[in-house]
This record gives sequence, structure tokens and C-alpha cells, in this order.
Amino acid sequence: MKINICQLNYKTADCSYNANKIQEILDKSNDDVLNVFGELALSGSPLYSRNLYKDLYIETSKLGDALCNSRKSFIVGTPARGDENFCYNSLVFVDKGEVKALATKRNLGRFDKNFTQGNGIEVLTYNGSKIALGFLEDIENFIRRKIKVELVILCTNRLFDKDDKEEFIDSLALCARQLDSKILLVNRVGAEGSYVFSGTSLIMNEKGEVCKRLSMFDTEEAFVETDNLVIERHNPLCYEEKIYKASVLALKDYFNKNNIKKAVIGLSGGIDSAVVVVLGVAALGKENVTGILMPSEYSSEHSVSDAEKSAKNLGIEYHTIPIKDMFAASLKTMQPLFLGLQPNTAEENLQARARLMIVMAYGNKFGAAMLNTSNKSESAVGYGTLYGDDSGAISAIGDLYKTDVYRLARWINRNEEIIPMNSIDKAPSAELRYNQKDSDTLPEYDELDKILIDYIDNNKSRSELIALGYDEKTIDRVLHLFRINEWKRHQEAPAVRLSRTCFTTDFFNPIS
Amino acid sequence: MKINICQLNYKTADCSYNANKIQEILDKSNDDVLNVFGELALSGSPLYSRNLYKDLYIETSKLGDALCNSRKSFIVGTPARGDENFCYNSLVFVDKGEVKALATKRNLGRFDKNFTQGNGIEVLTYNGSKIALGFLEDIENFIRRKIKVELVILCTNRLFDKDDKEEFIDSLALCARQLDSKILLVNRVGAEGSYVFSGTSLIMNEKGEVCKRLSMFDTEEAFVETDNLVIERHNPLCYEEKIYKASVLALKDYFNKNNIKKAVIGLSGGIDSAVVVVLGVAALGKENVTGILMPSEYSSEHSVSDAEKSAKNLGIEYHTIPIKDMFAASLKTMQPLFLGLQPNTAEENLQARARLMIVMAYGNKFGAAMLNTSNKSESAVGYGTLYGDDSGAISAIGDLYKTDVYRLARWINRNEEIIPMNSIDKAPSAELRYNQKDSDTLPEYDELDKILIDYIDNNKSRSELIALGYDEKTIDRVLHLFRINEWKRHQEAPAVRLSRTCFTTDFFNPIS
Repeated sequence: MKINICQLNYKTADCSYNANKIQEILDKSNDDVLNVFGELALSGSPLYSRNLYKDLYIETSKLGDALCNSRKSFIVGTPARGDENFCYNSLVFVDKGEVKALATKRNLGRFDKNFTQGNGIEVLTYNGSKIALGFLEDIENFIRRKIKVELVILCTNRLFDKDDKEEFIDSLALCARQLDSKILLVNRVGAEGSYVFSGTSLIMNEKGEVCKRLSMFDTEEAFVETDNLVIERHNPLCYEEKIYKASVLALKDYFNKNNIKKAVIGLSGGIDSAVVVVLGVAALGKENVTGILMPSEYSSEHSVSDAEKSAKNLGIEYHTIPIKDMFAASLKTMQPLFLGLQPNTAEENLQARARLMIVMAYGNKFGAAMLNTSNKSESAVGYGTLYGDDSGAISAIGDLYKTDVYRLARWINRNEEIIPMNSIDKAPSAELRYNQKDSDTLPEYDELDKILIDYIDNNKSRSELIALGYDEKTIDRVLHLFRINEWKRHQEAPAVRLSRTCFTTDFFNPIS
Repeated sequence: MKINICQLNYKTADCSYNANKIQEILDKSNDDVLNVFGELALSGSPLYSRNLYKDLYIETSKLGDALCNSRKSFIVGTPARGDENFCYNSLVFVDKGEVKALATKRNLGRFDKNFTQGNGIEVLTYNGSKIALGFLEDIENFIRRKIKVELVILCTNRLFDKDDKEEFIDSLALCARQLDSKILLVNRVGAEGSYVFSGTSLIMNEKGEVCKRLSMFDTEEAFVETDNLVIERHNPLCYEEKIYKASVLALKDYFNKNNIKKAVIGLSGGIDSAVVVVLGVAALGKENVTGILMPSEYSSEHSVSDAEKSAKNLGIEYHTIPIKDMFAASLKTMQPLFLGLQPNTAEENLQARARLMIVMAYGNKFGAAMLNTSNKSESAVGYGTLYGDDSGAISAIGDLYKTDVYRLARWINRNEEIIPMNSIDKAPSAELRYNQKDSDTLPEYDELDKILIDYIDNNKSRSELIALGYDEKTIDRVLHLFRINEWKRHQEAPAVRLSRTCFTTDFFNPIS
């Protein structure tokens, strides 16, 4: 059996775009090749609201008919309507232009909220061979049915997870051995809002050995002959490279799919903005990223020089816009109410919000979207200004703890100094008052991140954290800060989801 | 059987608080009374993250033991642990201080993400009578088992929905007749973040006739003798009163449960802020709400006088803080970049964001949380400034379309002019440029809201909207605005959820 594995990057609800991509591939395909496109390839995904499904159903039906006119063989994912009130997440099997079978998803997942439960994996015949067709999520049910087929074709929209040890490949290999069947898995790549899909489409033999594996982040086609599979070696990407590529892809897709060309970013000279601007330039090109330096009376000399260096290293346009006048005007404006009162976070936040006003004004005037520069550690403990540095169209490192940001920065600098070394080496500071350091308010990031990872990612309770040997007072301080800052996390810029505990997509706490 | 229906307002994850409330009731209870508390009464709900459950399990076990010491009879909801990795959403039945039975939830719902599926409704004996105990969501499974009992006790955490026609009572009545059994339903009241729980605990006889019905929004205890049930008449609240009470309760709980005493709100003289400040005062008292008037050169005379009138009618503290200096400073600051360019939304947003800075500075200095004043119509079409008037700790009317805001305003004014009539009668305007009207940019709200309701709440697709007779160009304009503003809705203040299509909790669209 000749198969073309099509790992594409679809656009949500832009069916014509998706259909064109599919048509191009069918046009150049031989008649004896089965082209396999992924889950909801025609409609894009995630779709969320149900009224959108109904419009899409009409559109995808028409486009699906047009694809059939090519008389080629293919499998494509699309919403398919049962009757007026039901819509299935479906895979259509087309044999030389004729619709021969439909598989509908049974185990519905996080993006399937408005789909109706379907029948699961279907068995069909193609070129005299028995094939099973369905969704990855339905494989367990199929195994129980003990049907012998030559090949199982599974489609999925699997999300990227930086901590993923690819156990799903081991699970699939076990399935292949249990079924004594080859397995083809087709996943999409690309991003939709916060969500990054993780590619890694692959085919394995009956022993569960991977014989072809596609990239994690690139669109790719791969031609395989199922009678002639050869085991393939794989060089995995390192942790930092995965994070880097996932973030860059997410930014690229966010801007491209929303038809925004330009990005604007506040450069403080600190590590966070220095890393985000690198990711932004990698995604959009240096000509499309503008840096704004916004020093205040509390800015140290190095913050300006480090930020300038960061911009110059990347060759981007940058502007220095001091916040002095705006800060002074805001103090003057508040004076009738603040007279005689001690300065506190009110004055600190005024500076962060003045900076937000400047960056957003630039963005509104020149059609640029603001890149947020917050990290997950700050977000967890509320160390940032809501409607200030917590803001932005998309947060590239919002799902990375501060220690991971350092790790990524060093990896970016592995060959040359792209990020100023001083931004990496100096003590982190918000510079909203004289000589302020993050460590005045927070535990050192090494310690903070360990507690946060155990609490958030390893799901340890307070008592378990104590048993792990962390200082009880520090635990309580961190958990208290975590707890009282949920209301801020709810309004932060959507983070590129790099883990299962991303705050803006997966990990929520009570607000009250 | 003597039953005390306990409809309380629990605090999420504040187990001691909840246990004290329960203990107080048990202390004054007679020995022959069964006190029924609701779902997750001990722990509060929704809990969200799993590590929280583990800590709570330890705490609720201890507190549960203490409650048993009273030697009274009661039913209480709590997380109960199976083994290290399982936790059930459970109801514990205690007979004169002894744990006699446990019912675990089978059909898990939106707030049960981290609970393990349990067994559903259990049958037990109390004082010689056969009782079924479990969760409302599990009633269908129980009916199929055809077990005859005298009374079915169902607990639930049911959410408020302004459009709810109380079909659940008809469904329950049908269950009562099918089972030939009395049914007791216990729901909680109160709010957690955006979520408002809808009370309406009730008991019905075997014919499905309601014999006692508790309030929608108030904590209440009701004593009933199941052998002596008498049909009760019910006077339903009108639509506006339900909305009003739900919003006031949500604000009250948001502030109380987060230990925030004071609220601050920008008063523009428009209908939205005029309604929200009334709700704020009803929730927190006039001494705890401060209004800030922030006129600009584009403000009409009536905006200041209407806003003042609104504050004076309510007797709240208010301050007039012109944005002139801050706006001028921000224009001067941006001048090197904006020189020679036409004014556009950049300059308009600078004004909205200067106002945000002022309100938040007041809040930061005096420990007040900002009340957001956006409505659902604006949110749907992105008519508002992100990090400006879209901001705030909680949005009281964020799930109300503009036409509902008018309806609520007129209801508030039914006896006297609390909201200045001019705020209700004048044409809505953002006043960010000379003579601006909302209708310059948007369809009239009457028309806009009809389209939005059909699209969002009635789930009509574009083609169905056309068939309903709306102007095609207007539909496409509205749907386009709706589509491109998802990124803003993601960062808006959390709205008090009054419907099944609240943007910040239920109704999401693709960002790209």
C-alpha cells in the first residue's frame, strides 16, 4: 500500500485555505497513493462554539465534494452532520473520488465539547487490504474488539508538552504488537492561539518499531510503502530546542493567522524581554519587530545599555521613550488624593502602566501587536503589574518558569552572544523603586521554581511539600501568593501553552 | 421523618469556616432531625486543582470526625479519598454521630474535573425508612434501577442562569412520579468568582408537587416533616429582580470572600457605570464604594452632571480627577513617534488607559478593587479599550447585553430616580473624540443585541441568521467584529456569570 502522510498546518475555520492545501497535494498525487490528512483538516481546530460548526458543515460539505472530483484516494478529517442537532468529529475515506467510509470519534476530548459521540474506529477495505480507520483516542476500544487488520490509521490533534517523554510512542508500539498490525499516526503541526500541536506523525511496523517519523514543528509530507518499511533512527531535539521551536511557531502562527505583520515589545534590559524579543525576531523577521526602551529615574544604567545591546544584536528598530513626563503627570493628577500618604505599590504600578500605555499606543498607531514578557514564576506569585507588564497580545514565555527562561537564554547564546550576557548574569529587578531586587519580595528563583514545580506540575500538597524538606514558612508564603493572585492570572496575556499546567489554558484555582 | 434543609453559602477551600457553620446548626438541632447540607459543603466548590483536593481531604476528614462528635444526624458533602490517587465527590450519611453510608458522584460535571467517577445513588435505611442518597446528576441512572424508596435526597451545586425557565423542577417532578417517591433537592447559594449558585432547594411529594421551596439567593434553613407535606404556592421573581439579586450577591461574595472591603469605580455618566455603581452599593454599602469622575476635553457637560447625580443619589464618596495632564503628557511622550500622523484609536485608547491608571492607582493606594463597567454587547464586538475600560477585578454586567442593562436600569428606578434618567435616555457614547456616538461604529443596540442573542444564545449560524431576515451586511459586520475580538475577551475582567454563554467562563471562540 502506498501512503502519503500529510502533516499540515491548518487554519481554524478557514476552510477554503485548508481545502486548497489539500487540493494541491491531491493534484500532484499518483492514483495508487492514499493521501492521509489529519483530524479536522478541512475545518481546522479547535472550533469551540457550536454555531460555528453549523456554518462550517455547509462549507466543508461543498469543499469535500470538490476534493472528490480529483478522483484521488484520501482520508480527511471534517465535521460531519448526523441530523440537525448532531455533528460528529469525522474522518472521511475517499477511494478514487468516491466516499466509501466514515469514522466518527467516540472518546471526545477537550476540543470536542460540541461534537456528538460517534462509533469509534471503522474497518474498511482498500485495494484488497483490510484497514482500520479512526482517532487515536479510540484505539483502546478497538483493541478489545480483536479484529485483525493490516494497517491501523489513526488521526489526532495532539498538543505539544515540553515535559512529554513520548510515552505515547511506547503505548502505540504496545498496541501494534497486541493487534499484530502496522500503525500510522497522523497529527497536525502549528498553533491556534495558545495551543501548539506537536506533529510527530509516524508509521510503525507490527513490532511497534518506528519506520518513519515526521518533524515536531514543520509541515511535511512523507511517502511510505507499507510492504517495505525500514526501521528509522531518530535524533531527538533537546529540551531547549523544543521550547524554542514551539514558542517561535506559536508566535509565527499567532501573527500570520491573525493577519498581523508587526510586533512591538518593551525592552527593559532584563532576561525576560531579551529572550522574548529573540523569539519574536525568529518568528516574524527583524524588520517586523520594534523594541521600545522606557527608562525611568529608577532605571539603572545597565538596563538601558543591555536593552540597546539586545536590540542591536538582533538588528531591530528601537526607540527610547522615557516615562518621566507621564509618571510626573500621573503623580500630579493623583496628588489631591495621595497628599501626605506614603508611596507604595500604587506609585510602582503607575510606572508599569505608563509603559503599557506607550507600547500599546505604538501598537495602535502602527498596527503592531504587543509581545508580553512575563514568565510563569512571576505569574504564579503575582509578581507583575496587571494592565502593565502582565499585558500583551500573546505571552511567549508565560508557561516557562524563570529558571527555564535562563536555560533557554543560555541555549540561544550557545554559539554567539545574542542575548547580552549581562542580562543573564545580573540579579533580576523590576526597577520600580531604588535598588529594588526581585529577591526583596520573593525567594530566590532557584528555590521558588522548585516549590512551584512540585506544587503545580508534580501535584504535591502542602503536607507533601513539607515532607519533601522545603522550609515551611517559604511554602506558606509561596502558596499564599499563589492563591491570592488567581484574579490577576485570569486577565494576563494568553500564554503559549508548553505544558499541561499552563495558567491561561489548563491550570485554574478558585478566585475567591 | 423530620428534615432540616440547610441551604448555605460555603467558602471555597475554607473548611474551618464551613465546618463552623455546619456545627452551629447541628448544635441547635434536635436528635430526631436529619440535617441535610449540600454538595461539597465541607470543602466548598469549585476546587479546580488536584493538589488542593489532597490537602483538603486531610482537613475535611478531621473536621468531619469533629462533626460526628455532636452525635447528631446529618448528610454532608465532602471530597473523600479512595486511595492515594483517587478522590470522590461524596455525600456522607451520619446517623446519630456514626458514619453509616457514603454516596459518590457518578456523572461528573464541569467542576468535577479531578474527581474519580463514583457509584452513583446509594440506598440506605434511616429510622426504619428506605432513603436514596446521591447527586442530582445521577438521578437518571437510579430511575432505571427501579428501587422503591420513601424519599430521594439529591444534592447539587447548580448554577444560576437568568434564562432558566426552571424546567429542572418539571424534570424532577417526573422523576418523583416515576419513582413514586418524595424528592428533596439541596443546592447551595452564593458565588465563587464568576459563578453564582442558584439555591432553590426544595422538597416535592410523590406527585411531584413542590411542598417547600427555599430562596434563590439567600442562605436559609427549612424544617419539614416528610409525613406531613403541604403543597406550597410560589411567587417567582421577575427577570430583572433575578439579575439584580444574582449580581449583587456575586459582588458581595467576591469582596467578602477575598477580604476586600472597598470598591472603586469610574463614573462616566453613562448607563453602564450608573447601573454598576448601584449594584456595588447594594453589595458593599455606600460607605465602601468610591466613584471617580474623569472628564476630558471630549466629555460633554451632561457626563459630569449625570455622574455627579448618580453618586449623590447613592450618597457615595466621589472625586473628580481630570485626565487632561496625563493625556497631554502621553501625547507629548509619543510625539517623537507620532509626529505628522493622523489621530486614530491610539489617541482614543490613551484616554481610556489614563482613566484606568487613575482608578487602579486609587485602588492600590486605598485597598479598593475596581468594578468593571463593560457590558456583553460591547464585549462581543470589541467596543471597549483593553487595559482601559475593559478592566477591573470583577464585571457585574459583563454577561448582560446592553438592552438588558437598560431593562435593569428601569427596574432599579421603578419607585424613584436612583439612576439619573438622563443616563438612561441619552444616546450611548464613549466620548473619546468630539460628538462620538456608539452608533457611529456599531448598529443600534436594539438591532445588534437581537443578532447577538440569536448567534450566541440561540446558536444560529450565519445562514440561519440570514433566513431570519437580518440584513446580510450587518450580520457579516457583527460576526466579523465578534470573531476578531476574541483576543480581547480573553483578557477582560471576569464577568459575573448570568447565562450559559458568559464570555469569560463558557463561550469561547478561536483566537486565530
